[in-house]
Amino acid sequence: MPLVLTPLPGIPMIQSGDDLAEIIMHSLSRVEIVLQDGDILVLAQKIVSKAQGRVVNLAGVTPSQTAYDLATKIEKDPRLLELVLWESNAVLRTRPGSIIVEHRLGFVCANAGIDHSNVAGEGSQDEEWVLLLPDEPDAAAEAIRRRLEAASGARLGILIIDSHGRAWRLGVVGVAIGLSGLPGLVDLRGKEDLFGYKLRITQVGAADELAAAASLVMGQADEGTPVVHVRGFPYPLREASLRELLRPKSEDLFR
Amino acid sequence: MPLVLTPLPGIPMIQSGDDLAEIIMHSLSRVEIVLQDGDILVLAQKIVSKAQGRVVNLAGVTPSQTAYDLATKIEKDPRLLELVLWESNAVLRTRPGSIIVEHRLGFVCANAGIDHSNVAGEGSQDEEWVLLLPDEPDAAAEAIRRRLEAASGARLGILIIDSHGRAWRLGVVGVAIGLSGLPGLVDLRGKEDLFGYKLRITQVGAADELAAAASLVMGQADEGTPVVHVRGFPYPLREASLRELLRPKSEDLFR
Repeated sequence: MPLVLTPLPGIPMIQSGDDLAEIIMHSLSRVEIVLQDGDILVLAQKIVSKAQGRVVNLAGVTPSQTAYDLATKIEKDPRLLELVLWESNAVLRTRPGSIIVEHRLGFVCANAGIDHSNVAGEGSQDEEWVLLLPDEPDAAAEAIRRRLEAASGARLGILIIDSHGRAWRLGVVGVAIGLSGLPGLVDLRGKEDLFGYKLRITQVGAADELAAAASLVMGQADEGTPVVHVRGFPYPLREASLRELLRPKSEDLFR
Repeated sequence: MPLVLTPLPGIPMIQSGDDLAEIIMHSLSRVEIVLQDGDILVLAQKIVSKAQGRVVNLAGVTPSQTAYDLATKIEKDPRLLELVLWESNAVLRTRPGSIIVEHRLGFVCANAGIDHSNVAGEGSQDEEWVLLLPDEPDAAAEAIRRRLEAASGARLGILIIDSHGRAWRLGVVGVAIGLSGLPGLVDLRGKEDLFGYKLRITQVGAADELAAAASLVMGQADEGTPVVHVRGFPYPLREASLRELLRPKSEDLFR
């Protein structure tokens, strides 16, 4: 079966309090997609954050001394760094222009995922506004899933993604930051290949592979769309949490 | 436009010297896919390696003292480690059961990409056989591309992928190890979002996002397929090399 990823058209600019499930259902009907068992909807984190009202005006942030010190060292706005510290469990690396942290949600990313682009407060073009990552993305995904499942009668998965840089390779790629109803990892332990050997590769980051695929379809600029419909995900849907994708610090050779 | 990834059926067990372009054309005709401008074919590295005859019998490998020392430390076969060292520019990290290297091709991966699974010499089930990564995967992709373009008259891309583990996250994901005719990185610098802000994210690892998507479709075990046809890749095709995806060591905070 082919894997088909369809960008959903006509998703409006999302505001705090918007009903994403309703907006997605409306868009699906526009492209005449009827949800089926096994379908997955992939959402860019930005629209989840915006619907949650996770915008912050930097003008209202008072940096700590730690943030000021960091700002001098890495040449960034101390107010932004105050938010980065607030959103993080630990700072892993810094250098001028870059700060890599363990986000409070447990994953490693730059700037704690805080984004300047494509945000404005109350219709203004005030560049002081930034957008934090969603609060409890697994729960946000779950809430949207319940609504869409109730409306469609289908067993669905919901995946919330962001774009992360990587060690060793250039370019950002889509990764999962929250999910409901689909596996994060797929365990192939015990499966055998054509010669009867046990597979060396035992766990596939299936939700991250899907995140990357959907990110490709979303694009990054204004012609893009923040929601992608997926049909043909090759693994069985199940209950899961983002946590299963996070490598325990004690097993990480690159902290 | 949707992104559609179709697993190609009926790819036989590949042997040294097999004509992959011919095999792919035959499979495409079985599923009645007529290649169009912009289509991409994604190949698992295993079939490229096998066609190149990159199998090695461990029984014929004499480990160096370095390989023996490493074998004691990380509890692996010294003959395998001799091949890993031979295939690598540098060893980045080791611990019992794991060795992470910079491969001679420039990327970072475990075991230099050497694989036990799904390989046999001359039809035997001798577990001494291992498979090295392809020699010059960009050139291998280019050669297959020229054949398929000549046969179809279409402008195509060819992507060769492997599954790599990652810092910070569990599970392997598909990544590019060789390509021809499609961008590795897509540069969005200068693009603006809906509010006219320059995008913070400037470079997308597009070939790696596609690799992850195709990996999802290939699966890992015997029900999988090593070739995926892609239609709807959202960025313009162009000449490129895998090198553009490799982060220079001097810019890497996680070496």
